[in-house]
Amino acid sequence: VQPGAPLTRAALAAADEQDPLRQLRQRFQLPAGLIYLDGNSLGALPAATPAHLRDVVERQWGQDLIRSWNAHGWVDLPQRVGEKIGQLIGARAGETLVSDSTSVNLFKLLAMALAARPGRRVILTEAGHFPTDLYIAQGLCTLLGERAELRVVAPDALLDALDEDVAVLSLSHVDYRSGRLHDLPGLTRAAHQHGALALWDLAHSAGVVPLQLATDGVDLAVGCGYKYLNGGPGAPSFVYVSGALQHLSSPIAGWFGHARPFAFEPDYVPAEGIGRLLAGTPPILSLAALEPGVDLALEAPAEVVREKSMRLTELFIGLVEQELAGHGLELASPRDAQSRGSQVCLRHPQAWPLMQALIARGVVGDFRAPDLLRFGFAPLYIGYADLWDAVAILRDILQHRSWDTPAFHARQAVT
Amino acid sequence: VQPGAPLTRAALAAADEQDPLRQLRQRFQLPAGLIYLDGNSLGALPAATPAHLRDVVERQWGQDLIRSWNAHGWVDLPQRVGEKIGQLIGARAGETLVSDSTSVNLFKLLAMALAARPGRRVILTEAGHFPTDLYIAQGLCTLLGERAELRVVAPDALLDALDEDVAVLSLSHVDYRSGRLHDLPGLTRAAHQHGALALWDLAHSAGVVPLQLATDGVDLAVGCGYKYLNGGPGAPSFVYVSGALQHLSSPIAGWFGHARPFAFEPDYVPAEGIGRLLAGTPPILSLAALEPGVDLALEAPAEVVREKSMRLTELFIGLVEQELAGHGLELASPRDAQSRGSQVCLRHPQAWPLMQALIARGVVGDFRAPDLLRFGFAPLYIGYADLWDAVAILRDILQHRSWDTPAFHARQAVT
Repeated sequence: VQPGAPLTRAALAAADEQDPLRQLRQRFQLPAGLIYLDGNSLGALPAATPAHLRDVVERQWGQDLIRSWNAHGWVDLPQRVGEKIGQLIGARAGETLVSDSTSVNLFKLLAMALAARPGRRVILTEAGHFPTDLYIAQGLCTLLGERAELRVVAPDALLDALDEDVAVLSLSHVDYRSGRLHDLPGLTRAAHQHGALALWDLAHSAGVVPLQLATDGVDLAVGCGYKYLNGGPGAPSFVYVSGALQHLSSPIAGWFGHARPFAFEPDYVPAEGIGRLLAGTPPILSLAALEPGVDLALEAPAEVVREKSMRLTELFIGLVEQELAGHGLELASPRDAQSRGSQVCLRHPQAWPLMQALIARGVVGDFRAPDLLRFGFAPLYIGYADLWDAVAILRDILQHRSWDTPAFHARQAVT
Repeated sequence: VQPGAPLTRAALAAADEQDPLRQLRQRFQLPAGLIYLDGNSLGALPAATPAHLRDVVERQWGQDLIRSWNAHGWVDLPQRVGEKIGQLIGARAGETLVSDSTSVNLFKLLAMALAARPGRRVILTEAGHFPTDLYIAQGLCTLLGERAELRVVAPDALLDALDEDVAVLSLSHVDYRSGRLHDLPGLTRAAHQHGALALWDLAHSAGVVPLQLATDGVDLAVGCGYKYLNGGPGAPSFVYVSGALQHLSSPIAGWFGHARPFAFEPDYVPAEGIGRLLAGTPPILSLAALEPGVDLALEAPAEVVREKSMRLTELFIGLVEQELAGHGLELASPRDAQSRGSQVCLRHPQAWPLMQALIARGVVGDFRAPDLLRFGFAPLYIGYADLWDAVAILRDILQHRSWDTPAFHARQAVT
């Protein structure tokens, strides 16, 4: 791929040959012929996962039964997988755990952040934050009444909105629609300068954008197991609490977060360390299924992944500009690769039927209301030639308006 | 088995021949030679589960990817499996959901109960309630400060402790240690007479004790997927909210509980009905693994299960009395089968090494501090002759004090 020269499929296929991550694609079970640009919604199935899960189900559960809590380390699984994710996000040892859903973990962390900053009642966030982050904060504020308030501002008004009432700045690292990448170190510093904690939702960055939570002084974080970590549908979430804040207790004081859960004591005594973030009995099957995906992510150096990710989104935008000009598409993601996560959003008035037509032709992205086509690029299994093929199909659909034919609508009506 | 006559293995084996549930044992994958009396801790693997989970993993996730949320009904799975459990517990349609852990669901329901009874601040429960139920209530009270108080009394003081400050009476139907069965209808009525709600933890009764939540006017309930429902380790929990209380909102306002989760609206609007109890993205693999276990439980009529369950515990106690007299064992469960769940606890000063010796001989129960041997009897896969064999092994261990030999301790030290 020569800078300035027109992009060709041959040049992109040649780039695949040089791709240091190329061999990893074989480590996923992807359907033949499908171009899957929705790994930021649900990651692909790692090839190692089915056999691992069969072992957990048939041997560990089926044969060894209750003994597996110790014999097969189920009891430590949240910490063990958490430690691995901790390596991906630049946490120190003992700061990361896998447990519950992202929403439940957000609830815990927001409550803990308010407790850590007595006298401050504001959760500061931006309009456009992922809905569940907003909803969870709204629900917590309803529960706590006058003790908490959600302040939602425009992204460029965040710094001005940081004041001595703010207990916690709660943001997504990568915007789920546009892919815009926040300045995580800078916003974390700004929060600290105003005495607030920084809570980052890493759903769209863990596994694809390099993270240095410890170095950057991040206080609290959550993230998603089922996107770029390829942990399977509804995979449990990870939760990070900086060592300096591990004296805080989770508001959801379940028995697995107890210092001695199997002593069955009447009073709650939180475990030392990150283990206190556990609540109930962890969903072992979903948790076990996450581990092979995390292991795969650990095989790929973060900087190599980021380099490929930026190149993928850059080339995709280049192809859209080169091949699809005049079709009414508008870029809804930052033009500068350094300011983007691993996704590209295009705006089009017919985004919904366009995406349906793409999916029918084997290019899977997703639609976000009202007019966004969203494409995610998972560097572990998406190649450069895939970009050409996806854009060629999109061009064909646009040229023939095949998303606007009676045949298309009839097909959609029955599927 | 003749009343009054000495119990023999032949009589018990003959009872197995007459057992209407006998064929169900083949529907579980149990290790040969193991007598598994710990199904109240982790239920056995249904034979149908591995193939079902392979399909969910390899075809639904692996091949159909993101489309499976609709194409394979993942999005409705919490409600679909919930409805089935609703049939087991005597709920009306639309009152039961599978979501999160029992601990997280307890947190939601306790907060909702306090919101339903403004001006009342007390959560009333008993000493000896399952620890996570106590811990979750303690954590919620810490979070809410003066707005909530946990009142813990002796079981026989519950009725006297019901007063106009009590918002909710929170109890386990079956005591996790002794197996004592509470008078659920009576205590629910008593709570209502004092203007309080009744919240029942059905962890040790769902699937083994007949339940009529709607008829009994139960307000709120939670229960466990991984005990008698055989849903696998850490299977998600079920949550029940009476239709009359479904105007209440969950304090954990995650996006899956939103009226339109995929509209990505900025403000939380709870779904109508039980769906609002959802929080984050459900753990689909663990949830899918639960369904075959629930389906199996639905095949067995509740009254037939209860009849066998009472007979199992009664015969086990009879065998202990007949075969193990003079060995220092003391019954720690109610003597009357009507007052017991499907388990029996025996007290012995050497309970811990005794249970280790039993497990080493292929009889799996569990130990509860300080001195309890706990045996659970899952009527779908435990037979009457199993009782004889388990007691014979326990007798052998007691007679030879084989839990107290150097060889035993040496073996324990390395396992």
